[in-house]
Amino acid sequence: VAAARGRRRSLDEFAVIERFFSRPARTRRTDVVLGIGDDAAVTRAPAGKDLVIATDTLVEGTHFTADAPARSVGHRSLAVNLSDLAAMGAEPLWATLALSVPEADADWLGEFSRGFFALARRYRVALIGGDTVAGPAGATVTVHGCVAAGRFVPRSGARPGDAMYVTGHPGDAVAGRLLLDRSRFARRGGAALIRAFLYPEPRLREGRALLGIASAMIDVSDGLHDDARKLLAASGCGADLDAGAVPVSGAMRRLFREESLPLALTGGDDYELLFTVPRKLEPRLQRLAARWCCPITRLGEVTTGKAVRWHLGGRAFRVPNLTFRHF
Amino acid sequence: VAAARGRRRSLDEFAVIERFFSRPARTRRTDVVLGIGDDAAVTRAPAGKDLVIATDTLVEGTHFTADAPARSVGHRSLAVNLSDLAAMGAEPLWATLALSVPEADADWLGEFSRGFFALARRYRVALIGGDTVAGPAGATVTVHGCVAAGRFVPRSGARPGDAMYVTGHPGDAVAGRLLLDRSRFARRGGAALIRAFLYPEPRLREGRALLGIASAMIDVSDGLHDDARKLLAASGCGADLDAGAVPVSGAMRRLFREESLPLALTGGDDYELLFTVPRKLEPRLQRLAARWCCPITRLGEVTTGKAVRWHLGGRAFRVPNLTFRHF
Repeated sequence: VAAARGRRRSLDEFAVIERFFSRPARTRRTDVVLGIGDDAAVTRAPAGKDLVIATDTLVEGTHFTADAPARSVGHRSLAVNLSDLAAMGAEPLWATLALSVPEADADWLGEFSRGFFALARRYRVALIGGDTVAGPAGATVTVHGCVAAGRFVPRSGARPGDAMYVTGHPGDAVAGRLLLDRSRFARRGGAALIRAFLYPEPRLREGRALLGIASAMIDVSDGLHDDARKLLAASGCGADLDAGAVPVSGAMRRLFREESLPLALTGGDDYELLFTVPRKLEPRLQRLAARWCCPITRLGEVTTGKAVRWHLGGRAFRVPNLTFRHF
Repeated sequence: VAAARGRRRSLDEFAVIERFFSRPARTRRTDVVLGIGDDAAVTRAPAGKDLVIATDTLVEGTHFTADAPARSVGHRSLAVNLSDLAAMGAEPLWATLALSVPEADADWLGEFSRGFFALARRYRVALIGGDTVAGPAGATVTVHGCVAAGRFVPRSGARPGDAMYVTGHPGDAVAGRLLLDRSRFARRGGAALIRAFLYPEPRLREGRALLGIASAMIDVSDGLHDDARKLLAASGCGADLDAGAVPVSGAMRRLFREESLPLALTGGDDYELLFTVPRKLEPRLQRLAARWCCPITRLGEVTTGKAVRWHLGGRAFRVPNLTFRHF
């Protein structure tokens, strides 16, 4: 067969799956009937609940650099998806992983797998299937979660008068990413920021706790201002927000000074939760959040109309037109 | 912010999703509570059924060439996944699509979308979510289907004495792929072969009809011989198979002559179903399959032991060590 080429796989799919992704020590769940190894996985969805499904891709050159730690890439490929479940108030169940790598580099795959599974174990997510292909480095994860039927938190539920809150310290992740490019700063207390970028923690517990309290929710992946606009547009509302209230972390303030606020408003990759709460539920929220490991901050209030207005010290504040999302 | 770069997205994610992937004319299903547009999709799994979940990636350079018709890439990205559902006996429900493209080429995206949705509509698959990123061309689809609880057909259920069958004409797809490289042959009746490669039809109806009849099933994606070995290894069995029975199509025989049988045994990308049936159910299978649009062919019998033996005209036949899967 003249034009046919012989076997040219640069990695043996079965060896990769067996060695790095289907070890018996991985999270087992009784709702997984059939895991990795057949044409498809078989699972049993919990009765009386809705399924929540999200998918996100990380691609080298766009979402991570060629020299990014593989453990971080493994962690983030799952974390960005779990963050989407968190923003719906869902509990995670299962994940699939489609991994594209230029070659079967055992060190890289081992580290990727460690990052992925350390996070998966923490939230009892079972890897039920996937695909490994030879190609440019990248990972697409699809996660499945559940939430009591009809009780998920959409982006579209904010109403005028609701308060808007955010978890954690938005901007830390983009600050960490910038520090990766300026390694001299890492010694001046930037390690926490770099960690916020490389190993974001999905706010799953917080998201679930907000069921029945939050009227609308989104995760901050494109930047606080962008994602606030998306939530409010989906809800058909506007907002008056206090730029002075934006919770800039101490490390960020020390290292980035007057750049801190623009970074906190426009930086992406935070995976914090941005949500709205009816006023009468704010006391309940405050009691609840007092026990959380991350702070929550009230940014302002949802309004009628469609304008998303930030103010600072009594004057209108214009959010700079920057994004730092992609390499 | 010196080191920060401005917005560098080469495609506007929202415009792409809105224009090509979330038009209201797409398949609607009452079990989709919340589709594209929030952090995640929300669905309601059918009661009393198992969920069947598969994910597969196509990458340019590995699974399709840069000059492949985008409509075919869209079709195949869904078809290879639906084929996995077919091999479990499952009925398709929903799909997510993670699409990576180097730039927002409206012609390419339009054709991809047409190929994807033409197939999705045919089998009532709802696109419930996805991601578009700037990167090397590729698509990862995750499909969800259902099957009556505990009744899916695994790879592992073959027993000695069962008969082994295959649908359609394995090898046509790889023959079509080879013809794409030798365009002079296309005029000599190769159009059907090229179509088998570019637009494989997942055997969903056949797969579901085999519930309760097939003891084991796999889809032929890596080549008839390779996939037979996988099914038999999962079942802990061997097989005696008749290479002379392999259903080589007339077009393939005319164009590839003595190369036909090696191609039919080792070519991949067929997406036919290979399955085993207990002998006492063979009459029922024959009655059923008489109404199908694709033929079925009995290849031989499952045996004890682990050897997968092919014979031809009473003599042992050695399958050549070739694969034609990837570019």
